[in-house]
Amino acid sequence: MNKIKVGILGYGNLGRGVELAVRNTSDMEVFGVFSRREPASVKTCGASVFSIDEILNFKGKFDVLVLCGGSATDLPTQTPEFAKNFNVVDSFDTHAKIPEHFANVDNAAKSGGNVGIIAIGWDPGLFSLNRLVGESVLESGESYTFWGKGVSQGHSDAIRRIKGVVDARQYTVPIESALASVRAGENPNLSTREKHLRECFVVAEDGADKAKIENEIKTMPNYFADYDTTVHFIDLETLKREHGGIPHGGFVLRSGSTGERGETKHLIEFSLKLDSNPEFTASVLVAYARAAYRLHKDGKSGAFSIFDIAPALISPKSPEQLRKEIL
Amino acid sequence: MNKIKVGILGYGNLGRGVELAVRNTSDMEVFGVFSRREPASVKTCGASVFSIDEILNFKGKFDVLVLCGGSATDLPTQTPEFAKNFNVVDSFDTHAKIPEHFANVDNAAKSGGNVGIIAIGWDPGLFSLNRLVGESVLESGESYTFWGKGVSQGHSDAIRRIKGVVDARQYTVPIESALASVRAGENPNLSTREKHLRECFVVAEDGADKAKIENEIKTMPNYFADYDTTVHFIDLETLKREHGGIPHGGFVLRSGSTGERGETKHLIEFSLKLDSNPEFTASVLVAYARAAYRLHKDGKSGAFSIFDIAPALISPKSPEQLRKEIL
Repeated sequence: MNKIKVGILGYGNLGRGVELAVRNTSDMEVFGVFSRREPASVKTCGASVFSIDEILNFKGKFDVLVLCGGSATDLPTQTPEFAKNFNVVDSFDTHAKIPEHFANVDNAAKSGGNVGIIAIGWDPGLFSLNRLVGESVLESGESYTFWGKGVSQGHSDAIRRIKGVVDARQYTVPIESALASVRAGENPNLSTREKHLRECFVVAEDGADKAKIENEIKTMPNYFADYDTTVHFIDLETLKREHGGIPHGGFVLRSGSTGERGETKHLIEFSLKLDSNPEFTASVLVAYARAAYRLHKDGKSGAFSIFDIAPALISPKSPEQLRKEIL
Repeated sequence: MNKIKVGILGYGNLGRGVELAVRNTSDMEVFGVFSRREPASVKTCGASVFSIDEILNFKGKFDVLVLCGGSATDLPTQTPEFAKNFNVVDSFDTHAKIPEHFANVDNAAKSGGNVGIIAIGWDPGLFSLNRLVGESVLESGESYTFWGKGVSQGHSDAIRRIKGVVDARQYTVPIESALASVRAGENPNLSTREKHLRECFVVAEDGADKAKIENEIKTMPNYFADYDTTVHFIDLETLKREHGGIPHGGFVLRSGSTGERGETKHLIEFSLKLDSNPEFTASVLVAYARAAYRLHKDGKSGAFSIFDIAPALISPKSPEQLRKEIL
């Protein structure tokens, strides 16, 4: 069997995760990493590294390019650009800009006869899929998404930008009593503050005004002001030892009713508990890279989201095998 | 907007659930119930009732026929038969015979230019979908399915056939310590006895030998012998009052690892807690009836399982709306 050849664009935590996830499959192989950095300076887990400037020389040499840049500045331009010449998969996660991104990728991918799958990962991604299934099966009901417990990179960065802060890690924590109320079928209206806590571990410079830092964090608009936030000052060694991982996860719930007058209650719950957010996101990207390859082989082109892809396309097994073994 | 017109074949708990689920949607309506019984004797929640013998007179008058018979004797013949003339959806759940059933429905549906979606519900159905996603995203790992706590109709029937038993209700109960071990990432090898308990509520005839009944239940091959089973004798009134519902549910878990040497652990969990097994199964059938209508409108024919259907097709919302609102 010819293995599906995967190119990786960008080699941060996510790119490394994609390399390892591809290695973990039976039917795919890494073609190489493409980087903006000097190739010799990029230390992979074994994959060849090429300069991104050379990528067009490899057109037709691999099957799918997995884009591992960020949603703020990289993907809005990269995904349409590379979709002109390659099948691509990205993890674009700026929810509000998804329609615009989808349209841009759709045009570019169609012009090149390629497939572009966007917004893959767990949210957007598997969580979106579960929101769709929940509200489609139980039309009368309420959907809830909780994130965590996990590290929010954006919130950690926001703390690091405060004067006097050396390093920081912020955990988003779902509030147990809110989850319990949803699970009990109470369909609560939950404010932002009632759904999640924010817990911060901060390393301050020697002599820094900790009370001032704590106040700056807790009152920071958008990031912390709407939440109950706790701040713990710790030393750098403790931060590295106890908060070095990038765990995450969360819950998607649909609480709905059926019957003549909605008298019958049902609860659908999907949850993730991830020791590494980027490694798991990478594993989802790789499963959908398999789908991109198959859709393209089947003559399709344009943009796709997780909603547009038949689940069988992400499995290494054949449809016959899937029906026999796990249906 | 023209609503999708749904025919319902068979009017037991499931057929009634389909009628109510369709009523719960914004874009579908019940065309009528088709029954083997005398139409005047079938009391619906409002739907018209026709004799099944007349169904061909209604060819082209409705969009999808939802088959609400049983998997043992009804569906193996009904689904292929009606797929010749109608788009159909069934909840065929004899896992071992799914490949054969799929092939039969595929032939019949293709010959009539129709769409036949089989094995829809929660297991097979939403549980299958989650098994597929779990093993595709985390190729290195173990999958687990637990059922319950819920009423098993088959096991309740088996108890009722014992001499001296007036009525009975059997609950399948997942064993908490087994679930906890899976959630802890221990990837245990679980025997049948280690995964589920069986709890029985039995009404015995006056003067019946209860010890003998209990022994017959606990040693019954296939049904109970491989499980730890508890038997409670109660009176008929208590059975009706406390065990009149048909709740069910369960858990699908994927415990897997990523990283250079599988050092990073992840857990994916999907669970259902259903107050009424047939009403929920009906709700899933109706969402996939929407997909059958759309696939047929798109020129497709043949058999489909949940694995073959892009999730967007089950939602009343447009792809644009889905991307904007819940991706």
